[in-house]
Amino acid sequence: MEWLPETRQLKLIDQRELPAELRWLVLSTYEEVATAIREMAVRGAPAIGAAAAFGMALAAARAEAHGAVAVRANISAAHDTLGAARPTAINLAWALKRVRQATATATDDAAAIAQMALQEAQRIADEDVALNERMAEFGAALIQPGETVLHHCNTGALATVDWGTALGVIRKAHELGKRPQVLVDETRPRLQGAKLTAWELQQYGVSFDVISDNAAGFFLQTGQVQRVFVGADRVAANGDVANKIGTYMLALAARESNVPFYVVVPTSTIDLSVASGSEIPIEERPAGEVLDLLHEGRPVTPAGVTARNPAFDITPAHLVSAFVTEFGIVEPPYIETLAELLKGQ
Amino acid sequence: MEWLPETRQLKLIDQRELPAELRWLVLSTYEEVATAIREMAVRGAPAIGAAAAFGMALAAARAEAHGAVAVRANISAAHDTLGAARPTAINLAWALKRVRQATATATDDAAAIAQMALQEAQRIADEDVALNERMAEFGAALIQPGETVLHHCNTGALATVDWGTALGVIRKAHELGKRPQVLVDETRPRLQGAKLTAWELQQYGVSFDVISDNAAGFFLQTGQVQRVFVGADRVAANGDVANKIGTYMLALAARESNVPFYVVVPTSTIDLSVASGSEIPIEERPAGEVLDLLHEGRPVTPAGVTARNPAFDITPAHLVSAFVTEFGIVEPPYIETLAELLKGQ
Repeated sequence: MEWLPETRQLKLIDQRELPAELRWLVLSTYEEVATAIREMAVRGAPAIGAAAAFGMALAAARAEAHGAVAVRANISAAHDTLGAARPTAINLAWALKRVRQATATATDDAAAIAQMALQEAQRIADEDVALNERMAEFGAALIQPGETVLHHCNTGALATVDWGTALGVIRKAHELGKRPQVLVDETRPRLQGAKLTAWELQQYGVSFDVISDNAAGFFLQTGQVQRVFVGADRVAANGDVANKIGTYMLALAARESNVPFYVVVPTSTIDLSVASGSEIPIEERPAGEVLDLLHEGRPVTPAGVTARNPAFDITPAHLVSAFVTEFGIVEPPYIETLAELLKGQ
Repeated sequence: MEWLPETRQLKLIDQRELPAELRWLVLSTYEEVATAIREMAVRGAPAIGAAAAFGMALAAARAEAHGAVAVRANISAAHDTLGAARPTAINLAWALKRVRQATATATDDAAAIAQMALQEAQRIADEDVALNERMAEFGAALIQPGETVLHHCNTGALATVDWGTALGVIRKAHELGKRPQVLVDETRPRLQGAKLTAWELQQYGVSFDVISDNAAGFFLQTGQVQRVFVGADRVAANGDVANKIGTYMLALAARESNVPFYVVVPTSTIDLSVASGSEIPIEERPAGEVLDLLHEGRPVTPAGVTARNPAFDITPAHLVSAFVTEFGIVEPPYIETLAELLKGQ
């Protein structure tokens, strides 16, 4: 994800085209950013947050010639439109709020407001890279040489600005010479594991096999996995985790086999305003994602068949062995340790 | 599945073409039957058993003109080839053994031996229909009107000779006017749920939605499922269940939400010679089933990516609420109740 200063545009990888094609999108308006988020050209909670922040900067830039009032109006419209693009990701609301607060000054200088919006967006992106690398280091320390780790969805550089969360941990362990073996959940329905995580791990030279999500339990049960790493879209105050659909069953299987289950999250993903997972809204996405596997307009089911497609589930806190954050490892009781972690933020 | 007496051939639906096309295979030799089983043109433990039995009848019929010694030799060759086609299904070995025993007489009359083989195969098929309907009745009695039930893989008429096991229960409940709602696990990697179960339920007029396997935990956790029904490929003496990959994680999620988890099996699927699930061999199938979702030679992963593909997993007996058999409902302690059930068989 990159800001183009000459044209004041946002450039990012169109993740829908991977791994077949490495295509870049160049976005000029906040509406285009909202569409990219909604249609999952950009996905992953931190990447969505940073893209939305740059979307606010685009809103300001495009209105700049019309004066400060227009800039503020456009920022406000962008805040609402971008905030509604994906309801579950906490980073989205968090990033939008940061940019809005950064631009909430008394100045009438439209260019200055636009500059503030861009600076805050760039700061969010830069911070994301730095804190993801810190998380990666804390998490990599948990992995012993030669261990097999299991990973769900995509949480790598594509899902963030760089490094990633759970996949950043694995990449860092690899760079430290620990040679982790990875089992990659394909992650139906959108196949972020088979498409994006596999693509990233191949770039990094990490050894891995893709598995159907259904097979995770078998590999855990037969002692072939030493640790599980996932990211999260939102963590409640009590440690309940909203993450990609399938995470909950994976956590159950890990617990049943006494395999540590780690959730790798920046503190921006922790939402103390939400007491427990039951308060987190679960996005239900189009049935076509389930029925039309390659998204080519050719459902595998007979005509007329319907589907349900919740995009996330809630993993109860008691199934989480520890959180890996940019400030270190956080263990239970989460109701206390997460509050302590966020104190003073 | 149907025996064609005029030409002495076996006719069955090519399940690989469903739901796009209803294509029938007409098989003339036991080798063709073995190929159909190996390549999953016919699948589902009872259907495999019946098809293999007819495969033995084909072996006898084709050798009949060459005398009794040739018939016996061909039956023996068919027994070995068919037995190796799918290692996990117990019904396969059971059906082959029945036909071999039925033909183990002193006669030198080749036609008589061939007739015995066919009669036993037809008996296995007819018994399957009758006992599946009995299972369906016992199982349907467990379902309350309007309940939502969750189903994994395909266990219907396609997987058996008729009716099916777990799906037969659902069909029977529907015919009894209980109007069950069904959540259909798509069942990666081969999508038997999305392709076959959806096709069957549509034929029967049952109301259903397809879900990704990953979503089963969400629906169980949120109280949207009252019962889970699955079939099995083999049940050990202690009640451990070998079934389609993903069954184990589904059972864990059902237990976590106190939702009854039923395994619907004819007693031929119960193998008292195997003490526990750890002794059941787990077939690992080609990586292409995972990577190439539509089996069209177009993997979704980047070139060079590998996959692991265990076709079954073991659900420990303690996660099974009850077995539904042709003799009724069997509850724990399974080590005693299963042995009691099979006494005198």
